[in-house]
Amino acid sequence: MTKPAPVSPRRDLTDAPLLVAARGGVPEHTPVWFMRQAGRSLPEYRAAREGVPMLQACLTPELVCEVTAQPVRRHGVDAAILFSDIVLPLYAAGVGLDIVAGTGPVVEDPVRSAAEVAALPELTPEHVANVGEAIRLLLTELGSTPLIGFAGAPFTLASYLVEGGPSRNHERTKALMHAEPETWHALLDKLAGTAVTFLRTQIESGVDAVQLFDSWAGALSLREYREFVEPHTRRIFSEIAQSGGHVPKIHFGVGTGELLGAMRTTGADVVGVDWRVPLDVAADRLAAAAPHAPAPVVQGNLDPAVLFAGEEAVSREVRRILAEGRAAGGHLFNLGHGVLPTTDPGVLTRVVELVHAETARR
Amino acid sequence: MTKPAPVSPRRDLTDAPLLVAARGGVPEHTPVWFMRQAGRSLPEYRAAREGVPMLQACLTPELVCEVTAQPVRRHGVDAAILFSDIVLPLYAAGVGLDIVAGTGPVVEDPVRSAAEVAALPELTPEHVANVGEAIRLLLTELGSTPLIGFAGAPFTLASYLVEGGPSRNHERTKALMHAEPETWHALLDKLAGTAVTFLRTQIESGVDAVQLFDSWAGALSLREYREFVEPHTRRIFSEIAQSGGHVPKIHFGVGTGELLGAMRTTGADVVGVDWRVPLDVAADRLAAAAPHAPAPVVQGNLDPAVLFAGEEAVSREVRRILAEGRAAGGHLFNLGHGVLPTTDPGVLTRVVELVHAETARR
Repeated sequence: MTKPAPVSPRRDLTDAPLLVAARGGVPEHTPVWFMRQAGRSLPEYRAAREGVPMLQACLTPELVCEVTAQPVRRHGVDAAILFSDIVLPLYAAGVGLDIVAGTGPVVEDPVRSAAEVAALPELTPEHVANVGEAIRLLLTELGSTPLIGFAGAPFTLASYLVEGGPSRNHERTKALMHAEPETWHALLDKLAGTAVTFLRTQIESGVDAVQLFDSWAGALSLREYREFVEPHTRRIFSEIAQSGGHVPKIHFGVGTGELLGAMRTTGADVVGVDWRVPLDVAADRLAAAAPHAPAPVVQGNLDPAVLFAGEEAVSREVRRILAEGRAAGGHLFNLGHGVLPTTDPGVLTRVVELVHAETARR
Repeated sequence: MTKPAPVSPRRDLTDAPLLVAARGGVPEHTPVWFMRQAGRSLPEYRAAREGVPMLQACLTPELVCEVTAQPVRRHGVDAAILFSDIVLPLYAAGVGLDIVAGTGPVVEDPVRSAAEVAALPELTPEHVANVGEAIRLLLTELGSTPLIGFAGAPFTLASYLVEGGPSRNHERTKALMHAEPETWHALLDKLAGTAVTFLRTQIESGVDAVQLFDSWAGALSLREYREFVEPHTRRIFSEIAQSGGHVPKIHFGVGTGELLGAMRTTGADVVGVDWRVPLDVAADRLAAAAPHAPAPVVQGNLDPAVLFAGEEAVSREVRRILAEGRAAGGHLFNLGHGVLPTTDPGVLTRVVELVHAETARR
């Protein structure tokens, strides 16, 4: 008798518009979700989070389940995205850091030398077992809505560790990169390993897709990105692709117009685009980077600031983006960056309705 | 007898490398200056400014003369840039604002309605007479080193006024732009008038070139830039070109890779490029935007963060940028953004020496 293969908890959501579009197929309507849809724009989120620090919240399964599901219930978006934070796996592995209100993540002991890189703790699946538990709760809670897993990419995590917190100019990070490339690559190698462990945990727990956020990659030139970042990101996508259960891999950063081609050749199935580059232009750049691959799939790219400009302007911009998205091999409608905390959630609901109405196949 | 033409105080600096390069000629060496070269990286600046608030400093002729000249004395740069602040003309015209340490400019009463735009005071030459006086002092102080005048572009000034201070996402600014285009254009029209008055005062006082900073234009898509910003910037360059004394016009913003062509067709003679786009790529984009014009002249583009990476990395990057700059019709060496306050000034001096040594015509 052979040992039975482990049963995957993943739901069969083959026809879900998000997954169809991400694979370059023809969905029943253009799928739509919003980066940071689970967050401060929702009163029910603020109520659920009240008094619970961010990183503790990310490791509390029932709370993660609740806030992840809230925007699905309210807006009818085509995907949930796991409520988490970019620095969560570092915190879970034992790196001394905290998220300070009004500032962002603050790292107790910045990592700037080879010895400090070597001493950085490695993430194990046990560290993020609670995230796996949250996903198991969500698979029931979400019914037939896909769940997107989430991790921060090595460059962005490295910047937090090297600078000791959020940075406008990333000067210590870039100095390390250029002055001590071996130390740099050792650091990014560790952070890529962290991302692989974190994403594998999520995939094995049943997420339907993953998004790797490199929030700050747009601070780099293409030359720097190719030499110092892309190999590590490519390793992440390659290793999670081998870990069974093919799930679509989305890659996103802000201000990455110069980097789009290189972000695709990391192995991403879908490349997120911010509002600065029209989706048809982005599709051309992505196609040029991989001329023998299928037509690229894009995600984006409504400027989150436009959500403050009134219904007429929002509708006009949504229609323009849908038209430009048709130039790609597939389009996941999204913002070009995260939902701003002061956004009126009713506007988001209307965007979902409009995207669905404009793209429904009769 | 005809009335004699007013005598221009401008020095005859025809052969100065900065001015030769800006006009597309062949200078004796590639000129180099640094955005924010007059500033906190210099101990002599910190000493001179001690106890003097920023906006007051910008309106004190002797102090402006001193801090503007400091980096010329120390680094041997090929140009001085008038010490000023982007919001100075607003303050001088009577807008209630202050520069708050650690925050930036804070506007007492944000400008968000047609009535508030109409009530915005207009700048007159008398408001900035002290800046003219500072320039007159500098013409003697600087000997044969060119002096670059300085103004903030309408979009960036509008963002301060609409948001009430520095903004990460410019959501109120973009909302006004998209929701009330007439109010938006009235605001930018006023701010363009302010820039014209401020730059004319500087030109008539004898500056040798001007730089128009649109610090935050990179937050816009090309479509937005063309519709909501470019016409006003073009008007500024057109009106100052007509005001006599042809001085080279430099235009710069950060993160403007998508906008470079449109920034050239505003009438700029030189387009500044941040570190994200190599100068040869930038030259191609600029040439494509104006195919019948002479080869474009670029300014840039060493990443100011690289100045923290040690001499070897700095020298390597300087040489790469000089090589890439040869693809343009002219190159003004500069950083890709302003000098960071914690920069070692000795590194800047060595960059000047290296640029001169590498490009000297024997």
